[in-house]
Amino acid sequence: MNGAQSLIRTLVDTGVDVCFMNPGTSEMHFVAALDDVTGMRGVLALFEGVATGAADGYARVAGRPAAVLLHLGPGLGNGLANLHNARRAHSPVVNIVGDHATHHHAFDAPLDSDIATVAHNVSCWVHTVTDPALVGAAGAEAVARAVAAPGGVATLILPADASWGSGGVVAAPATPVVAGTPDADRLAEAIAALRSGAPTAFVVGDDIAGDPDLLADVARLGAATGAKVLGETFPARMRRGAGLPGLERVAYLAEFAQMQLDGLEHLITIGAKSPASFFAYPGKPSDLVPAACRVTALVEPGDDVRAAVAGLLDAIDTTGVETPRVGRARPESPVGALTGESLAAAVGALLPEDAIVADEANTTGLWLNGATAGAPPHDWLSLTGGSIGYGMPVATGAAIAAPGRRVLNIEADGSAMYTLQALWTQAHEGLDITTVIVNNGSYAVLNMELARVGATPGPKALEMLDLSEPALDFVALARGMGVPGTRVTTAEELSAALAASFAEPGPRLIEAMVPSAF
Amino acid sequence: MNGAQSLIRTLVDTGVDVCFMNPGTSEMHFVAALDDVTGMRGVLALFEGVATGAADGYARVAGRPAAVLLHLGPGLGNGLANLHNARRAHSPVVNIVGDHATHHHAFDAPLDSDIATVAHNVSCWVHTVTDPALVGAAGAEAVARAVAAPGGVATLILPADASWGSGGVVAAPATPVVAGTPDADRLAEAIAALRSGAPTAFVVGDDIAGDPDLLADVARLGAATGAKVLGETFPARMRRGAGLPGLERVAYLAEFAQMQLDGLEHLITIGAKSPASFFAYPGKPSDLVPAACRVTALVEPGDDVRAAVAGLLDAIDTTGVETPRVGRARPESPVGALTGESLAAAVGALLPEDAIVADEANTTGLWLNGATAGAPPHDWLSLTGGSIGYGMPVATGAAIAAPGRRVLNIEADGSAMYTLQALWTQAHEGLDITTVIVNNGSYAVLNMELARVGATPGPKALEMLDLSEPALDFVALARGMGVPGTRVTTAEELSAALAASFAEPGPRLIEAMVPSAF
Repeated sequence: MNGAQSLIRTLVDTGVDVCFMNPGTSEMHFVAALDDVTGMRGVLALFEGVATGAADGYARVAGRPAAVLLHLGPGLGNGLANLHNARRAHSPVVNIVGDHATHHHAFDAPLDSDIATVAHNVSCWVHTVTDPALVGAAGAEAVARAVAAPGGVATLILPADASWGSGGVVAAPATPVVAGTPDADRLAEAIAALRSGAPTAFVVGDDIAGDPDLLADVARLGAATGAKVLGETFPARMRRGAGLPGLERVAYLAEFAQMQLDGLEHLITIGAKSPASFFAYPGKPSDLVPAACRVTALVEPGDDVRAAVAGLLDAIDTTGVETPRVGRARPESPVGALTGESLAAAVGALLPEDAIVADEANTTGLWLNGATAGAPPHDWLSLTGGSIGYGMPVATGAAIAAPGRRVLNIEADGSAMYTLQALWTQAHEGLDITTVIVNNGSYAVLNMELARVGATPGPKALEMLDLSEPALDFVALARGMGVPGTRVTTAEELSAALAASFAEPGPRLIEAMVPSAF
Repeated sequence: MNGAQSLIRTLVDTGVDVCFMNPGTSEMHFVAALDDVTGMRGVLALFEGVATGAADGYARVAGRPAAVLLHLGPGLGNGLANLHNARRAHSPVVNIVGDHATHHHAFDAPLDSDIATVAHNVSCWVHTVTDPALVGAAGAEAVARAVAAPGGVATLILPADASWGSGGVVAAPATPVVAGTPDADRLAEAIAALRSGAPTAFVVGDDIAGDPDLLADVARLGAATGAKVLGETFPARMRRGAGLPGLERVAYLAEFAQMQLDGLEHLITIGAKSPASFFAYPGKPSDLVPAACRVTALVEPGDDVRAAVAGLLDAIDTTGVETPRVGRARPESPVGALTGESLAAAVGALLPEDAIVADEANTTGLWLNGATAGAPPHDWLSLTGGSIGYGMPVATGAAIAAPGRRVLNIEADGSAMYTLQALWTQAHEGLDITTVIVNNGSYAVLNMELARVGATPGPKALEMLDLSEPALDFVALARGMGVPGTRVTTAEELSAALAASFAEPGPRLIEAMVPSAF
């Protein structure tokens, strides 16, 4: 058994049975081992950012890691942006980066570079294994590190000779680190705040946003004490819809977030970060919490959130308190012009039960949250790390993780262009993904931000934000990768195209021509 | 004057007047400053790998750096692979990476990450400037570092508040480091080798491959002493064609390279590396130099190559020695089936004088070298760092650097998919680029390498190298980005499409359906 075979066998034994990959020569023994060892599904991506984003989406939906296989430092570079988003989503990812054989480094061959420096940017753990006999154990450790709460990118650098060398040993699963428990003083502080009657809010993280039962507990605590319940701006995964507790998210725009937080005297974060501005703006504070508001970090992301909520429930009487739940409500099917609002209404009117939404609508997405709140229960994935180009790959991985469920990817045109190659994998794997491209011919978010940072643009600056010359034709781009596409210019056409795609298997792209609001 | 304005003014004053960019919110003041300061041309790319590759291509052709503007760590990640190629090409690049405002780091906002760790992978210099008053000086230093021999990627990390803050000061150009001179002992050793009559070869680097006069000197030294003259496998830029000295390159495949080097007793490298295998293979040596051959590194890349050659000419009498030059010869216009060989013949038959070829044909490119050797003089760019996806961006930058010259990008299908977004910039800027996509539906090079590394593939492995399900339609992909495309299936059709494109302004894509040889 060579190192590569022992690695795949170990991964499969620990439940990691999908590998998104874009391999090269130094990974050929790993690739060949896919046939020697049963149980590992290889999924080819034509660009590394697709592979890494797919692993992120897979982890968010499956709740366990996929592996990624990348080709040396440049391959890792290409995959870095979506590993960054995965890191921010606390997604467990087993990130295997092939390297030259150890004895080859002395020659500083063209593809040689310092892989570990790049990996440290996104990884919770980086390890290079050089002995084929230790590759299995390193793989088991990588899985344990990836799944250790709150979840992260564990990078295993795998030289070609560790892969092809004989003497591979399959390793037993390693034990992940145990999550931290709530601190008694912080718990007491939170309880005191909730009992004080002063304006208080919770900010809950991914562990609660993705778990309706836990969210119901917090919602009941809020109802019993008058505390507001807020979610983070960009959760990795929210479970939401009719019959579930609602969760108002902290707004992306600092101006709106400050309105949400205005007048608060206590903020209790549960596995979440204290609200801060996404970007810095001249003369504006980055901290969105009012000066007079005290923040209690009850537990950090990755700590035992369940124990923290239980601790609050032990102290606060919620007997007889009804859990606030969202009512069933769908917007009416929209008619007429295609706008951000009518696009959202069409989605809200038609979203299938148990759908998975990968939302990268950016500026056009403003209305989506409200329009889908009362739709049948579904999962909502968002851009956790701010690195655009996450949506199409994450949708791809989500569909691999959840066969039988419809994935809806709402994707801004500018963002789509970073990782468009995902469409090929969607076609190749026959995934049930509906991609709605919001084509407004602009980096609209930057046109908005340009004003917010206080910059005065001239024609050269505006040209840097303009995608309209030439206009992008996403139906042609989709066809080029084997995905059927439809262009829609009215709300009715969008509704018809959505309904048709939801009813048919496989991927489809809908290009929605929506004028920019900015 | 804010920091951004002082930076652009300083760059323009030092001759850096093109900036390839994919900016975000933290770069908006830099973008706005494009209108405040005259002389800087902004070129928008829809993906960072296009911007960085374009800067590489620009530098190779213009001989001076362009700037690149990227958005935080993930933007740098997306641009890393082509910065890696630029590093290996010794291309000077002024790589500006925007960052959050300094006071914003405390909040670990979603896009925050350790940019410098990533930058060190590719950079000869990394510097973060936080004071607006020092931004201009940092920009001047970045240029000096980038152009210091042999040329490299100088990364300037620019926090948003250094960009928007007032008090910017335009800086005078900084003085680059002077190139190293040849060592007297090495020179004596090289001279002794050349005089010995023993089998000897030169391996010359980019400074000679790109300079026909210097190459003529070395060719004459070779003719006078019987020494063979070889070039590196993947030169950044070769000047070649009818009437110029020829340059046989060390072969990519180790088996062929060993045949080229067999029996040599002396190898004299001049600004080049000693030949080593591109990848490592089980049981095969990485060092391609015969065991009994002594290597003299006369000068390292970036040292004073001209002085080294002059030193040899002082010692070796070349009086009356004719410079070996390549005769004018074009292949006949090919007919019939489209193959690697007929594709090369079509290119050789039609290549316009002074064209710039960006070669990423990979396995199909085997015949290109021979078929174009006697074409009218032209520049030939190759994949210096082995990170595929270099060709389309480098072609883009080359065309910006050399208006009026035809750029021919011969691009393998798999490689094209990494940085396909370059086509949009080509259309947006109206660049005279002919892209020939070699569509063989396969990562053919990996099918070849799989056997060479001794791996035995099964069906799952072979699926990871197959691009045929669904088939990629590059004409549709090009249309999606505003570039007209033509699919050709015979040699005659290819010749007609090439001739048409060479005669018309602007970009065109030709999709050549060439069966894989592997």
